[in-house]
Amino acid sequence: MEENVPIEKKVLSENDKLAAAIREMLAERKILALNLVSSPGSGKTSLLERTLKTLGDRLNMVLIAGDVQTENDAQRLMRAGGRMVRPIVTGGACHLDAKMVTRVLDDLDLTGTDVLFIENVGNLVCPSSYDLGEDMKVVLISTTEGDDKPLKYPAMFRRSSVFVINKIDLLGQSDFELAQVKENARQINGNLTTFEVSCRTGEGLQAWYQWLEDQVALKKGIRPTGL
Amino acid sequence: MEENVPIEKKVLSENDKLAAAIREMLAERKILALNLVSSPGSGKTSLLERTLKTLGDRLNMVLIAGDVQTENDAQRLMRAGGRMVRPIVTGGACHLDAKMVTRVLDDLDLTGTDVLFIENVGNLVCPSSYDLGEDMKVVLISTTEGDDKPLKYPAMFRRSSVFVINKIDLLGQSDFELAQVKENARQINGNLTTFEVSCRTGEGLQAWYQWLEDQVALKKGIRPTGL
Repeated sequence: MEENVPIEKKVLSENDKLAAAIREMLAERKILALNLVSSPGSGKTSLLERTLKTLGDRLNMVLIAGDVQTENDAQRLMRAGGRMVRPIVTGGACHLDAKMVTRVLDDLDLTGTDVLFIENVGNLVCPSSYDLGEDMKVVLISTTEGDDKPLKYPAMFRRSSVFVINKIDLLGQSDFELAQVKENARQINGNLTTFEVSCRTGEGLQAWYQWLEDQVALKKGIRPTGL
Repeated sequence: MEENVPIEKKVLSENDKLAAAIREMLAERKILALNLVSSPGSGKTSLLERTLKTLGDRLNMVLIAGDVQTENDAQRLMRAGGRMVRPIVTGGACHLDAKMVTRVLDDLDLTGTDVLFIENVGNLVCPSSYDLGEDMKVVLISTTEGDDKPLKYPAMFRRSSVFVINKIDLLGQSDFELAQVKENARQINGNLTTFEVSCRTGEGLQAWYQWLEDQVALKKGIRPTGL
């Protein structure tokens, strides 16, 4: 809304300062930070559950799970073996902001942490405007949502570095075309690292795990074997 | 955000005034207005396509299709036979507001119109706060999104009158439980009129068409046959 622009700019610039402080703190500690964004129900929590179960013994992961209401996602992540899981209930707000993340991080002992996952509120619009100090945004869509989503929500795809296409086990059950969604995403952002996965069957996840371990190694300044 | 509250209240109160004017204008003309809200890809456009094809000869429908970017949905609705279709491209805004709708309605000849459908931006959070002058909000979710959605996005379910569960042809392909999603929705709002449909196969849509025709008749002050 036009009336909102000045205050919105002020809020975003305050957010950016806090995000920069988070980024600096994480860089000093060599912690990789990923901000997961998607529509409701695309599979952010499922991807993290799988990642915890598979890499939980090899990577020390901290997880922040944001939701408008309920701590359901945080509880799912704890059940999946997450040792450091913190919920943020926004109580109506449509996105996480750097202030909310700062408050949580201030209370955590991050010694030995390899990766910080921030699971944002399920919303393909608003979270794109809020830097949380992450290294990268990871945008998910599921094959049941329609292959036009990158064109309809371009800001999110422009500001993401990684694109996870989930629920590939349901391909063929709708008119979603894998080639089309990748072409649409490429039109918006030619630099996306793309994964095609099913968090239900596990298909395609090996490449995601390998990529994640490589990114952790890069952050620590170790040359990863896979690259 | 706390800093945002006073301006947000002002914006919402201005929005409410415009929405009240829309509601009054539509009441005078006895036009039923439905505001369709959901996540991206739940099937708002598909439901409207089906409705146009089935009831296009019997009901005079005006459709406003809101999107952050692209006029894809409006084009789909025109291809489905919509004679009065207007896009609203919000250019970043995460919801439609009453001012945008007023601008579109001011340019339309509504003579003979039975129903105004407003397809909101795909977002389960922000559109819940903006009254557009509608008679009812219709919230959709698809069976691939997870049955916990009413609990996680309670404002939208509290402010809706109708709940459409779409993609029932995909039941059994995930751990989505129909009984569970209905119980979760009932906990938030005991007065929801619920439809279980597949906009792909057409299953369950007959009840939606009948309900819609009955609502149009009620709005015109005619006692519908089906009630």
